[in-house]
Amino acid sequence: MTPTATVTRFIELICLGRLEEAAELTAEDITYHNLPMPPVFGRADMAAVLGGVCQLADEVDWVVHHQAEVGTVVLNERTDRFRRGDHWYEIPVMGSFTLSNGLITRWSDYFDLAQFTERFEGFFAAQ
Amino acid sequence: MTPTATVTRFIELICLGRLEEAAELTAEDITYHNLPMPPVFGRADMAAVLGGVCQLADEVDWVVHHQAEVGTVVLNERTDRFRRGDHWYEIPVMGSFTLSNGLITRWSDYFDLAQFTERFEGFFAAQ
Repeated sequence: MTPTATVTRFIELICLGRLEEAAELTAEDITYHNLPMPPVFGRADMAAVLGGVCQLADEVDWVVHHQAEVGTVVLNERTDRFRRGDHWYEIPVMGSFTLSNGLITRWSDYFDLAQFTERFEGFFAAQ
Repeated sequence: MTPTATVTRFIELICLGRLEEAAELTAEDITYHNLPMPPVFGRADMAAVLGGVCQLADEVDWVVHHQAEVGTVVLNERTDRFRRGDHWYEIPVMGSFTLSNGLITRWSDYFDLAQFTERFEGFFAAQ
């Protein structure tokens, strides 16, 4: 798969709730960095952070508005959407992915943490 | 010029402090959106916001780590650096630019506003 195809499949699997298969597209030593927060190192910790949000959602829909590749890097502009009950929680994001040997070795997402906190009020509440 | 070449030149002109020439690469009705804040409409207002930061700096250096083009859209991952006196103020940013007829019609920058506010403490102070 090309870098773009790998990232596209990675996001598809996340949206399908198939997080274990998604994680298999990442390197064991992946660096996962939500820019407003400290980076997370390793596939297991990445999957835990990702799962901590996705597994609360009844439905996950990451809309990729634009995606482009340069060398081994894929950049995209997205709206990451999570449904819980009848409410969709949405955050605008840009992501940067570096690939090596067909696996994602670095995933950096850029967004505003205060906007996320405000828009996701209630999302993390027990139901 | 290709979309990529236009965005590259736009950033070069900003770094050279030639903001009027940079603005000439944007459409009169450009939408300029720093995602954590409301969007700004029109070339004049875009230039005012951009100038409000750049003109305080003794030196501007936006490092483009990765940049890729898809159709009429250019995506990049940057570190935007501004020197005032002997201190460099830096913020990690991803940008998305849409072009039409060779001009930038939409410029969206994704970053964390709290991180910007923290890292640029002192930058906006009178000297």
